[in-house]
Amino acid sequence: MDDKILLAHGSGGKLQQQLINEVFLPAFDNSVLNRMEDQASLVLPPGRAAFTTDSYVVNPLFFPGGDIGRLAVCGTVNDLAVGGSKPLYLSAGFIIEEGLPVGILRDIAFSMKKAADEAGVLIVTGDTKVVEKGHADQLFINTAGIGVTPDQISIRASSAQPGDAVLVSGYIGDHEIAVMLAREGIQLKSPIKSDAVPLNGMIQVLLSAVPDVRIMRDPTRGGLATTLNELAQSSQVTIKIFEKDLPVKDEVASACEIFGFDPLYLANEGKVIVIVPQRQAKTALQALQTHHYGQQAAIIGEVTKDQPGKVYLETKIGGMRIVDMMAGGQLPRIC
Amino acid sequence: MDDKILLAHGSGGKLQQQLINEVFLPAFDNSVLNRMEDQASLVLPPGRAAFTTDSYVVNPLFFPGGDIGRLAVCGTVNDLAVGGSKPLYLSAGFIIEEGLPVGILRDIAFSMKKAADEAGVLIVTGDTKVVEKGHADQLFINTAGIGVTPDQISIRASSAQPGDAVLVSGYIGDHEIAVMLAREGIQLKSPIKSDAVPLNGMIQVLLSAVPDVRIMRDPTRGGLATTLNELAQSSQVTIKIFEKDLPVKDEVASACEIFGFDPLYLANEGKVIVIVPQRQAKTALQALQTHHYGQQAAIIGEVTKDQPGKVYLETKIGGMRIVDMMAGGQLPRIC
Repeated sequence: MDDKILLAHGSGGKLQQQLINEVFLPAFDNSVLNRMEDQASLVLPPGRAAFTTDSYVVNPLFFPGGDIGRLAVCGTVNDLAVGGSKPLYLSAGFIIEEGLPVGILRDIAFSMKKAADEAGVLIVTGDTKVVEKGHADQLFINTAGIGVTPDQISIRASSAQPGDAVLVSGYIGDHEIAVMLAREGIQLKSPIKSDAVPLNGMIQVLLSAVPDVRIMRDPTRGGLATTLNELAQSSQVTIKIFEKDLPVKDEVASACEIFGFDPLYLANEGKVIVIVPQRQAKTALQALQTHHYGQQAAIIGEVTKDQPGKVYLETKIGGMRIVDMMAGGQLPRIC
Repeated sequence: MDDKILLAHGSGGKLQQQLINEVFLPAFDNSVLNRMEDQASLVLPPGRAAFTTDSYVVNPLFFPGGDIGRLAVCGTVNDLAVGGSKPLYLSAGFIIEEGLPVGILRDIAFSMKKAADEAGVLIVTGDTKVVEKGHADQLFINTAGIGVTPDQISIRASSAQPGDAVLVSGYIGDHEIAVMLAREGIQLKSPIKSDAVPLNGMIQVLLSAVPDVRIMRDPTRGGLATTLNELAQSSQVTIKIFEKDLPVKDEVASACEIFGFDPLYLANEGKVIVIVPQRQAKTALQALQTHHYGQQAAIIGEVTKDQPGKVYLETKIGGMRIVDMMAGGQLPRIC
């Protein structure tokens, strides 16, 4: 097999078939995909179907703790899981820049498989396009995902109520700082790793303990601040968080100081914001903490009704400030 | 709203919300999408679920008869329909090059909606990413689609049997020639238009008339020749087609002569190859021809068992030649 991707690998002919047979089928290997029809045929369990998509353009392709393939699987799995769905099947669409080494594509495909295995999902259908050198940046991946939501689950961004508690499942900001440092070629003694993980296992534990979770959302692009603003607006409530309770690693806090970032706006790829009735806050916290992806979970705030649609931060020294949605962007192409 | 796409339109913050509110929601407008959750919640009718994806990188974005948005809807609808599924829901992922005029994105979104309306599908979930100028080429779109296949339908690439008839639903090659001429800036007196259309309506008519269709496949990249080879290999049969019966427009045949293309390898975006038992060939033909997208349908060949996996063409002067899969590519980025 040629060791670099050629335009003809995307033209639908022999070379494309070879690429599929030598890279994608061995990596994703499952009986649905292996039938190689134009569409995957699936038997879904009872419940509502959930459907989501994300494209991934992260730069660089590999970074401490992950790569674009792991991100493409975890991100879409998490978008299903935060709706209370059980993620089942993924599609994968690859847009490749001519000249990409085939070995890189193979490594990324196997990384996708590894993440899919951990999440318990199958990659059942896919597509490959190749564009001329200079018309893309190495590799972009789109994944779409199908899950099934049990009938009794009803999780909506509009469900927060005054008196509810706000939790986050662990340290914030790791992903964006890891990608930023990798992009700039900065190596630390103890590197900050991306938190890119599939959250469906932990969320299952949470939902078993607290079936009436009101809201779950993963604070990806735009960070905790932007996601909380979306929730405050959707639910027409105030969300107040406490700076002292926010889980931020010392290394991430230091990097933020050096580079002028605010951890509240940093993207995460393995965290979930959880809003539950106050009386269940401790049960939810304990459930999250029993899972290895939720060990640093914390109760970080509360829902009130003073200023519908607004988010406030009580600072460590007791001041209060409005936390707005992200206006511009801290860093492009973090996912 | 700024008139060009900025990096911040992809960063998850205020500008992204504005782009969604001012471009995508007005275009795609439907109750599932408008809920703006991280995942669409769907109630699927009974049957097996079908799931497919394609990315679209066509250059130029607009061409006679279509645009990248129309293509992105029709292509994915057709990949579901040729499996005998009823297409229901699409996702849409946009990868945008910084600097793209917002008006172009809006036109393409409305073109997607128009095609989706014709196909009777809803665009229910989406994603937007923006990459720096020079790191993509204006716009790439991924769509994934969900359909439902009635339990009695069983259409597989491995189902062709000796004695079956091979049909195609109309003129071949229009799409690739239309895109090629648009890319080169060549204008003809009577322009050749892309055939990009949703085929699910016509296929429904066909399946009502001939429920035991053995195979349907849309000959997109790689053209009729490559798709027939895939089917001959999957079914382990010989497929023999007759040059005199192939529907090719005079203008397309002329363009092929001038530019050195073979119509058998040209991509189509609104045609389907149909294989049926010989005794149902005429019924299938008539069913296709009653639909406006199948008026030029023709019986073009037959399935035999002489050389499993091979495709032959009987030329107009009575010669016989092997038709291989496409080896390289005729033209990159045709879809």
